[in-house]
This record gives sequence, C-alpha cells and structure tokens, in this order.
Amino acid sequence: MGFARNQWYVAAYGSEVGRHLLARTVLGEPLVLYRTQSGQVVALADRCVHRRYPLSESRLEGDTIVCGYHGFTYGSSGACTFVPGQQRIPRSAKVASYPVVEQDSFVWVWIGDQDRADATTIPRAPWLNDPRYTVVGGMEPLEARYGLLVDNLMDLSHETYLHGGYIGTPEVADTPITTEVDEEKGVIYVSRHMDDAECPPFYAKSTGIEGRITRWQDIEYHPPCLYLLHSRIAPQGQYPPAEGPDSAACHAEIVYAITPSTEHTTYDFWAVARDFAIDDESVTEYLRTSNHTVVMQDVTALNLLERVIAAEPEAYQELSINIDTGALAARRMLARMIGSPVGAAPAGALA
Amino acid sequence: MGFARNQWYVAAYGSEVGRHLLARTVLGEPLVLYRTQSGQVVALADRCVHRRYPLSESRLEGDTIVCGYHGFTYGSSGACTFVPGQQRIPRSAKVASYPVVEQDSFVWVWIGDQDRADATTIPRAPWLNDPRYTVVGGMEPLEARYGLLVDNLMDLSHETYLHGGYIGTPEVADTPITTEVDEEKGVIYVSRHMDDAECPPFYAKSTGIEGRITRWQDIEYHPPCLYLLHSRIAPQGQYPPAEGPDSAACHAEIVYAITPSTEHTTYDFWAVARDFAIDDESVTEYLRTSNHTVVMQDVTALNLLERVIAAEPEAYQELSINIDTGALAARRMLARMIGSPVGAAPAGALA
Amino acid sequence: MGFARNQWYVAAYGSEVGRHLLARTVLGEPLVLYRTQSGQVVALADRCVHRRYPLSESRLEGDTIVCGYHGFTYGSSGACTFVPGQQRIPRSAKVASYPVVEQDSFVWVWIGDQDRADATTIPRAPWLNDPRYTVVGGMEPLEARYGLLVDNLMDLSHETYLHGGYIGTPEVADTPITTEVDEEKGVIYVSRHMDDAECPPFYAKSTGIEGRITRWQDIEYHPPCLYLLHSRIAPQGQYPPAEGPDSAACHAEIVYAITPSTEHTTYDFWAVARDFAIDDESVTEYLRTSNHTVVMQDVTALNLLERVIAAEPEAYQELSINIDTGALAARRMLARMIGSPVGAAPAGALA
Repeated sequence: MGFARNQWYVAAYGSEVGRHLLARTVLGEPLVLYRTQSGQVVALADRCVHRRYPLSESRLEGDTIVCGYHGFTYGSSGACTFVPGQQRIPRSAKVASYPVVEQDSFVWVWIGDQDRADATTIPRAPWLNDPRYTVVGGMEPLEARYGLLVDNLMDLSHETYLHGGYIGTPEVADTPITTEVDEEKGVIYVSRHMDDAECPPFYAKSTGIEGRITRWQDIEYHPPCLYLLHSRIAPQGQYPPAEGPDSAACHAEIVYAITPSTEHTTYDFWAVARDFAIDDESVTEYLRTSNHTVVMQDVTALNLLERVIAAEPEAYQELSINIDTGALAARRMLARMIGSPVGAAPAGALA
Repeated sequence: MGFARNQWYVAAYGSEVGRHLLARTVLGEPLVLYRTQSGQVVALADRCVHRRYPLSESRLEGDTIVCGYHGFTYGSSGACTFVPGQQRIPRSAKVASYPVVEQDSFVWVWIGDQDRADATTIPRAPWLNDPRYTVVGGMEPLEARYGLLVDNLMDLSHETYLHGGYIGTPEVADTPITTEVDEEKGVIYVSRHMDDAECPPFYAKSTGIEGRITRWQDIEYHPPCLYLLHSRIAPQGQYPPAEGPDSAACHAEIVYAITPSTEHTTYDFWAVARDFAIDDESVTEYLRTSNHTVVMQDVTALNLLERVIAAEPEAYQELSINIDTGALAARRMLARMIGSPVGAAPAGALA
Repeated sequence: MGFARNQWYVAAYGSEVGRHLLARTVLGEPLVLYRTQSGQVVALADRCVHRRYPLSESRLEGDTIVCGYHGFTYGSSGACTFVPGQQRIPRSAKVASYPVVEQDSFVWVWIGDQDRADATTIPRAPWLNDPRYTVVGGMEPLEARYGLLVDNLMDLSHETYLHGGYIGTPEVADTPITTEVDEEKGVIYVSRHMDDAECPPFYAKSTGIEGRITRWQDIEYHPPCLYLLHSRIAPQGQYPPAEGPDSAACHAEIVYAITPSTEHTTYDFWAVARDFAIDDESVTEYLRTSNHTVVMQDVTALNLLERVIAAEPEAYQELSINIDTGALAARRMLARMIGSPVGAAPAGALA
C-alpha cells in the first residue's frame, strides 16, 4: 500500500542505459535495464526464475542476460533461452518484461497491468530534448519516502529558509500562492508571481539581469511522477507581451521526476533547462553546481525528516496553512490514485 | 512503557546550554534547549507544528527559533509568532514547553503533566556548585537501557572486576553491603564499609594517603534520576570524630544522573566532587582522566550487555545474590513509579 | 524453527581453540570455547547466570572462567565455584556445558538434549588428519542462512558461471548429474562424471596433468553439517583400475562444514585435502589462495542472495530443474530433521 500502480515512472535517464546492466527498484519492484544492440531500452524483472539471483549481477551477452549464478539465459522479451544441464526449457521460465518508453531524455517504465499501459498518457518535458535549451541535471537517491519530496516541491516557500543564498529570497515566502486543480487532466497548478523581488544569486549570476526582478514561479505537477516548474525571470516591471515571444525575460524550465523506489527511498531526478546564455559553459557549470547544491540541501533535510517521521507514533499531528494548499491537493490526488482513504493524511500516509 | 513519567530528569549540564540550539531526547520526547538573552534555560518540543522538522536544526534569533524548513517562528513560551505567506497565525501553532529548573549545575526538566511539576522535589547534589569542592565531570551517551546503568551503579562489587587498576580492589567485592529503603522519601541506601582495604590507584594518587585505608562507600539513590555515592577515604583505622569536622579523611562526592533517552539509550551524566587537593590541577586532571576511563569501561560493558539482552528471548533468567539487594530494591521502586507489575523483573523489564 | 537440533555441528577447528576464550554462536546458542590445561576442549554457555554478561569477555584462570563483570567463577563443568560477597554458592549457579568431540581436525559440539549425544554418529572426514594428504582450509562467516550454502554446494553447475577461471568449465554445467538418497544412513549422493573435459586452472596448475581430463565430482552430504566432495582428476580416458590403487589420478577431498550460527548467518568451514604434490609448498599456497577466492565468490553471491530473499514476500517462487535434484533432496532431509512440513519449500524455509 502506498504506491500508485498502473502509472508511468521515470526509471533512468536514457543516457544512463547502455550496453551494461543497470539495477533500479521502482515501487518496490526490482528492475534490470539495458539497451539492445539495435538501441532499444529493455526493462526486465531483476530476479532469475531459478533461485532469485539478481540478473543485474550477471553478464550481458548480445541482447541476452546470462545469470551469474547458474547460467539461466534470458532474451529481451524476458523468455528463457537456455538452462544448464538439460535441453528442455520449462515453459514457466520467463521473467516479467516492463513496457518502456524513451522520451524527453527519460526512460519511462509502466508499473502495473501491462494491457493498461498507454504511452500517450505520459506527461511531457520537451525542453530536456530541445536544441533551443541547454540542460543540466542529475539524479540523487533519497533516503526518504516520496511524499516528502512531493510536499517539498509543491511548497516553494521553503526556498527562503532552506535555500537562502542560492534560490531563496524573502519574497518567496512572503508572496501568496494561487492553486488550481484540474481533476480531469490530473494536474495541479501552483503559481507565485512576485512583481518586485530581490534576484537570488542563482539567477543574478546566470542571467546577467541586474537589480530587482519580476519573478514568476508556475508549477505544474502531474502526479505521480512528473513535476515542472516554469521559472520566469525579468527585469522588474517587465511582463510578457500580449503577442510574440517573451524575449525580455529569461526562462528556466525546472523538471523533477519523483520515482518511489521503496517505501522509504526515492529517486530524485532533477534537471534545469534554460533558454538564456545557452552556449556559455561557465553559466552551465555554475547552474549545474548550484542546483546540485540546492538538491542536496533538500536531500539532507528530507532524509532527516524521514528519520524523524519513521520514529514518530503513527498518527502524528501536522498543522497546514495557506502555503500548503498545493501540497494538500497533491496528497489528495495521489491518495485517489493509490486508492486509499484521504482525510488529513500526513505525508507519511502516502508512502 | 518502561519510563517513569511525572518526574524530573537531568537533560544537560547548565554549561552545555547557551546561545545555540541543543537537541536532547528524554524519555523518548525530543527536546530543543537554549538559553535566552537574559540567561533563562528554555526547553521546547523539538518538532515544528507544521511538518515536524526538528527545531534544533534551525536558527536561534534573539529569543526565538526560526524553523529551518519554512520559517515558522517560536518564542520561548513555545507559541508561534510568525508563519510564512500569511498574517494570521493559527491558534494551535504552539509547541510544548517543558518546566525547567537549573540547580546544582544541572538542567532539570519535568517530563509529565505540567501542573504536577514541583521544583521542591528535585533531589540535590550541592557539591557540584560549592566552592569548597573541586569538580570534574562529563556525559557519555549509552547505547543501553537505563536499567542496566542503575543495576551497575547499585552494585559496586563490579569495581573489583571491571575497574581493577582504577577503583577496584579485592575488598570491594568481598565486603558485604547493608541496604535500606526509605519508601516515604523514595531513597535507597546501600553501604559498604571497608575497615582495612588496599587503596586503589584512583585514591592513592590523588589523596596522598599512604598504605592501607578505611574506605566507606555510601550510596543514596533517588529514583529515577539521581545517584549519589559518598566516598570516604581515610588512613586505616581513622574514623569520623564524634563531633566536629571529619578532617582526617578525604571525601569524594560522586554524582550520576541517569536519564533515559530512548528505550535502548541513556544519557550517563557523571561528576566527581572532592574536598581534598582542591587547588591541585594535576589531581584534577588525573581524576578527570581516570574517572572518564572508568565510565567508559562501564559504557563498553553495558553497551555489550544491551546487545546481549536485546537478542535474548523475553523471559531470560537471572540469578540474584546478596550483592544485588540494592539493585533489586531500585528495580522495585522504579517499577512502582512506572506503574508496572514488579515480580522478579530483570533489568530489561524496566526499560 | 528452522534448525535441526539434536545433531552434531562443527563449532571450530581444533587449532582455533587454545588457552583463551573463543565465542561462537551455534544454532542461535552462544558458546564460549577453551582448552583446559590438560588439553581438553570445553564448550560452555556464553552467559553468566548472574546478569547474562558474556563469559567470552572474561578471563581464563587455570581451567576456570572469571566473569569480567562481577567475578562469578565457573569450572570446566559449568558449575560455579565462586560468587562475590558471600560464601554460599546458590545451587542453580551453573551454566550449560555442551558435549564436545575433537575429530578430523574439527571441534564438534552437540546441540540438543545431552543424553541423546552419541559420538559414534559423527560423520568422518579422515583426510583432514592423515599424513598422506596435505590440507589447506579456513572458515568464512556468511551473512546468509545456511540453506543457501547447502543449495550452493549441492548444485555444482554454478562453478561454470560463478567460478569460471578457477574451478568452472563449460562441462560442469553441461554434464547431467545422478542423485541417490540413502534415507537410512542419512546421506545424499550427487555425482557428475565428465569423461572429456577442459582442465580448470585450479587443477591444471596444481596436478601437472596436461591437456583434457576425465573429471569426477562425487558429493556426499551428511545433513545437517558435513559436506564432502571427492574430486578425481585424471588424464582424459584414464579410469580407476579394477584392483589396486588409483595412482594415475589426482584426488582432492574437499570438505565443508556448514554450521548455522543465527537465522541469517552461517559459519562456512572449508578445507581441501590432496594426495598429489603433497610436499610442494607452492602448490599448497596456490590451492589455499585459489580456494579462498572461490569461497569468497560464493560468500559474496550468497550474502547478496540473502539480502534479496530477506526482502522478498514470504512465498516467493522458485523454478527447479534437473540440476537441483540433489539440493531438493537435501532440503527434504533437513526439513524432516527439523520436523517441519516439506512441500516445495524454498531455501528460505529451511533457515
């Protein structure tokens, strides 16, 4: 309980998957990933049918995996093609194969009933694969339930306190948010538009904009996995034109994929795509380092919070205020996807 | 279960608490401690009401704590004075505040119903704050239930075996004890008077007394937290006069505060106050080092015993003999304070 | 549940037991082992009757153990001979003593009802103590349940995949086995006779035989503890003569003692006795190093498998094929010894 099955999840960046065996655990299911000789990504259950040895600890031979313990051999469909000591291959010698889609630089896997997998429902993050944008990114394993990362990202007022000196300024925490829920599309929108704000170092050093700014943060969360933050930075008072491109502003498309690994661990995929200074490698390097620092500040805080919450009595109290409207909407939508009762369930109840 | 609530416990030395945030967990309750600008010690629940982030991982600003995650701000009463993004502060935005008394160099906190806290019932250890005594001390975190430390301190015959070469000599284990229980005052007395004993290095090197000694050990245990050992060292045959000061003897007042942290961890506060060679810094240094070594011998043994007992079946057997009379009386008094059935409960049953 | 009691187990090599206190846990029972002044091996329960302090953390004085905490003293029978602070020794002051037999270089202990211990039922491994053989050996603690080591050793087809480059060649996995169960004697036989096989480095470098070989592997498993592998290596086509010694072949007697320590840990005693190049120290050193490497390959794989299985749902699936016939017979015999229902119990069910 606690996971939304029958959903697409990011298991890896496409760039992580190649001619070697990569182990990932998604929603508690152990997967082994590799790329076939023709370039297709394959995701199989990471347990040999014989004695449950992890296939990821095995050898990739052509497009087959040879189990490292007794040599059971599997093709890319998961069907066994060789067993030791006998000719006959038992009919049940087959490991599960997972639907895979490679899109927007991510490897998406479907966790659930195979016949319900519909690739057209995968939410998009096109900037990650668009020549007009320069992208930095990475993945950090989190020793915390995914609900804590959802909470964290849906309420950016924490930038002021946890990420001061990087992306936080007083205006983030001070400016009220607006929240909208599109139940039909399954998207939660949270917006914070700061008309006259201090420019945090993250943008001051990368955009070249001087002085105070007009800063917009527009979140789109597509539960369970994809989180988008459209960040617009412009000289103070500069708003998008009624028509034509918004060329006076700098745009950063900040993308997170939140993939539950086990009940208490999560893959935190993060990327920043920008439409400014796209050929400036010093900006690229600065944003990579800065955003990694910010992600690690979250990782440290959430890992601590996980230990706190895991040690608490089951029904601990939380107090929610206006800033939590988006996070609470996300919890409700996730709870519905999971099929569990909602109520004022704390983050713990989701994962 | 297993803790005596509605009691005073030592959470820290006063010297540990200053203009920073100190985390301590007492009886399983997470506390954050600090000293206000006017010098008062404050103890608050160490969990933000919003999302349970530890306040001890936050910032002290004047006399307020600003939560490191989203900026919820608390005054020294525990009441919230600021929340981000809105003017209205919810009435329930308040963390628990604990009654605190600073006395005899210790910070005592009351764990239980606030209206039952009575500072006059805190047992005293005046030597720790008396210019006629010189004090060395420290605190060691124990990876063992507090009952094991109570057992240890109530039966000093272990000095002969565990602390030989420091404070143990054959006479300690050989000399019978007398035990007295004052149920009304809630104190257990255990005495061992050695008329003609070898002088252990601890006292030989610090008192200047040569040859054999008359050594008295008079224990007063005030459950649950305070343990006093009045140690009298005199040249062999020298007894206290009928009247006037006992100036031929050296006195060490050995003080332990035994504070349960979690079910399997304990704070072991220890101090040695002496009325001899009080200005001799080499003696001070020697006693600090020696007593720390002795404490660490106990820590090592009790941590080992904790692992042994934690791995045992629930109702493991113990065999008690005369030396255990004091420890068994302590277990009974603690069990009554806890409100649990007594019987021949092993140490494990207390914690 | 899960252990076969009333059986003999190897607790140590005789060479490990001397004039010091050695702690071993067998079938969950903590033992302390030492050798008396007259050379007898003693095995006692490793817990003082007083407060359960481990006797192995104590001092050996002559043939007695003096508890390191309060000085309770035990003779080699386990009876207490001294307690502190009083003359009278309680009648119940006695720790359990375990029947011990030193044989074939091993120290065997009986875990179960003392009156059922019959030394004549201990299975033999005479090569380990025979001047016509040279022996290398060791013990590796396994962080895995013993059933996984039984599985591993009963199905040597894994040599091809896990131990390629040492003892594995394609023929091991390819050659079918024959299995025989002697229910009366309680022995399982698994044989794999390779008539024309590649010679693995392990034997190529040690026997001096060149070219292809005739390689026989004859397993005798005496559940629960003793596993013997009679390994015969000869030039290809060379079979034992109808009469007289098999002097054209090289023989290695590979011995494992599989001793469950706790539910999830095992002592893996291993030895290789050979009748060839017995005075050649470079061969001795080569076989010691090579076999240790092979053992550590198993240790790594089984420790990994333990973590996999411990994290799986209880009734995970396995698929067994012909190579598993011996391992399945072993599971059945062990299950009967344990007194648990058999069925298609996976390895996990045994330990």
